[in-house]
Amino acid sequence: MAKVSIITIGDELLIGQVIDTNSAWMAQELNKAGFVVRRRLAVGDVWDEIWSALDEEQAYADIILITGGLGPTADDITKPLLCKYFNGKLIVDAGAKENVLNIFTRLNRPILERNVKQAEVPDTCTVIQNKRGTAPGMIFYKENKTFISMPGVPHEMKGMMEDAVIPLLQEKYQAATIVHKTLLTAGVGESFLAEMIQDFENNLPDYIKLAYLPNYGMVRLRLTAIGKDPAMIEQSAQEHFDDLQKIVKQYLVTNLDEPMEKVVAKLLLASGKTIGTAESCTGGYISHLITSIAGSSAYYKGSVIAYAYDAKANLLSVDQQLLETKGAVSEEVVTQMVRGAIQNLDVDYAIAVSGIMGPGGETPDKPVGTVWIAVGNREKTVAQKMQFRFDRQRNIQLTAILSLNMMRKFILENS
Amino acid sequence: MAKVSIITIGDELLIGQVIDTNSAWMAQELNKAGFVVRRRLAVGDVWDEIWSALDEEQAYADIILITGGLGPTADDITKPLLCKYFNGKLIVDAGAKENVLNIFTRLNRPILERNVKQAEVPDTCTVIQNKRGTAPGMIFYKENKTFISMPGVPHEMKGMMEDAVIPLLQEKYQAATIVHKTLLTAGVGESFLAEMIQDFENNLPDYIKLAYLPNYGMVRLRLTAIGKDPAMIEQSAQEHFDDLQKIVKQYLVTNLDEPMEKVVAKLLLASGKTIGTAESCTGGYISHLITSIAGSSAYYKGSVIAYAYDAKANLLSVDQQLLETKGAVSEEVVTQMVRGAIQNLDVDYAIAVSGIMGPGGETPDKPVGTVWIAVGNREKTVAQKMQFRFDRQRNIQLTAILSLNMMRKFILENS
Repeated sequence: MAKVSIITIGDELLIGQVIDTNSAWMAQELNKAGFVVRRRLAVGDVWDEIWSALDEEQAYADIILITGGLGPTADDITKPLLCKYFNGKLIVDAGAKENVLNIFTRLNRPILERNVKQAEVPDTCTVIQNKRGTAPGMIFYKENKTFISMPGVPHEMKGMMEDAVIPLLQEKYQAATIVHKTLLTAGVGESFLAEMIQDFENNLPDYIKLAYLPNYGMVRLRLTAIGKDPAMIEQSAQEHFDDLQKIVKQYLVTNLDEPMEKVVAKLLLASGKTIGTAESCTGGYISHLITSIAGSSAYYKGSVIAYAYDAKANLLSVDQQLLETKGAVSEEVVTQMVRGAIQNLDVDYAIAVSGIMGPGGETPDKPVGTVWIAVGNREKTVAQKMQFRFDRQRNIQLTAILSLNMMRKFILENS
Repeated sequence: MAKVSIITIGDELLIGQVIDTNSAWMAQELNKAGFVVRRRLAVGDVWDEIWSALDEEQAYADIILITGGLGPTADDITKPLLCKYFNGKLIVDAGAKENVLNIFTRLNRPILERNVKQAEVPDTCTVIQNKRGTAPGMIFYKENKTFISMPGVPHEMKGMMEDAVIPLLQEKYQAATIVHKTLLTAGVGESFLAEMIQDFENNLPDYIKLAYLPNYGMVRLRLTAIGKDPAMIEQSAQEHFDDLQKIVKQYLVTNLDEPMEKVVAKLLLASGKTIGTAESCTGGYISHLITSIAGSSAYYKGSVIAYAYDAKANLLSVDQQLLETKGAVSEEVVTQMVRGAIQNLDVDYAIAVSGIMGPGGETPDKPVGTVWIAVGNREKTVAQKMQFRFDRQRNIQLTAILSLNMMRKFILENS
């Protein structure tokens, strides 16, 4: 089974100014295509360190994928290094040059000498044309190993992976069958879940692995089966996955690898119902999650994000006096926010949240992390108080996920 | 100067189901404290691969920081491996045990055998108590190298880094002075910027490096100066940074390492003005960015997220007939959305966006990626049409950033 190492190049990764989302995406696509990523290594824009990384990763992998360091600026040293590493000399690639000229003509921008230089490649490589940018990809072969260098700009790298790299690797290497089966649970801790499925886990065949992926009040469980025989691997993975679903039934959100907002979306689509949100402390994040799903306009009509008292009163018809007596973070106010959202947005269901995300803003009886969540339909509202103890970002994300889960349960119980 | 390698352990990182945000945060904190991260390596929950990673990284670094694989479930093999690697045997740590018992008592949850087992550590390590979770951290010393193992749960790892790891490393190793100076530009491409500052870059002393960090219509430029003498390093970095700011002046958004939404926040705070948003295609993402900043309630009052025509008409007072004749994605409609937001939210400034984020939803004259953005105050509105060609997520993020940049310029020009 062919093994892959991913090398990402760039100082920005080592000082933490940028989060490496490229390797996660690459790993996901490679897995789907039947390749196993063994290692992911990030090094800086430093000649010796890139060189050692190339030397080293071929000991672990058959395929070495490299991203970054191909830009037009002086801190990008990957191309000259690869040229030397693979004993080449730089020549202009006609296709790459035409591509650069086309892009600049289309953008109606002046072409700089350094842009034309991007069309230069080592004469020992096979070029992958870049349909979304100016830096070409490069393929090198050395002692049965395949090295492929791609730009670090995410959508350029993705285009090359899809159009050229994955098809090439599938043709060149016999890919193993990898089957992932993922389910999502909510409302149960990792340890308690582990206890529930201990026997199941101990009895798994050695070609199936179980992983726990806890995240914001949810735990995803993933079975991974690897082998040569696609039909047998698929069937065995499915049988074990069916068993697992039975064991965790009471906490199961979905038996697909999809986010909470997608599960809610499918419930709404199936029933032809609509939703809106009335958000205070989450500041639009629940709405953002809902609208991240393509096609959400079929069931999502809108939201009112009401930070100020006035906005809660004017746009969500919350009683001013209630705000003053009970405070914005109260069961009464979130309940009225649900009612106001259903009425003013003319939707079937609404989620409302109001809380104190911190830092600061607490009152003697409402510490940072106090959040009221309510969900409802045209007839009924249920509300729940939460107490979080994390930082602002995490409190916002946790509130959003838990409110979507409350909505999901409410829809299931009231339809 | 002490060098650091970061090893992250977990299959979820190699199949791409989770994005590694831990190492970025760690790298950032280490840098601030004067340590240079040389390499970041991710390996799976596989005995041999973790073992080789430990063998290998000590050749590159003095300090090896390890996260992940310490959970209570069977796929977490890091602790037994470290025990063997550093020739220890597992013993119960009294402090860690007390911590586990306290946590479960406080949560009022049953304590499972596997939870108590988390208090076991190799007798060859020094324990770092975990104030936010059950798995203790472990410090090992071997041939002048320091190895520190921490849990992979982000807020537990962060707590240990801040309370114990950084102070320990600063005491044990003489840290170099590292000064970063970062500025943000918008409205100019990376190549064009590089051309502008070519001479500046060529004349930098060898202890200062320049990096380009392009992201969503913006390019950040970062100078990094490293050396022994804090005063000299700071002064030299500042002088070069001053020069750089002069060169890119016309595109400069901020000379601090802060996001666009923070720059807008500071302008509003300084003038005592308020803001709201009227969002269609961004679905609350602009509002989310604004409210990600702690203390945003001082200038942010609320938003109307109006996907449906009805919501645009009812909550933003957009003319129904205009929606039908011009369509929601039009200059006229975003202009009315700004006016409606200012009036209905009672704010000084408003941002409005309406567009087609894809996939799907295009019309013959409005392809996917067509977006109208308008910004304004109580007297005046300006609108601009954009044409993006990316995927849904990227179109949403780009629209949000560009609309905040338009708002920033509008505030500067109209106050």
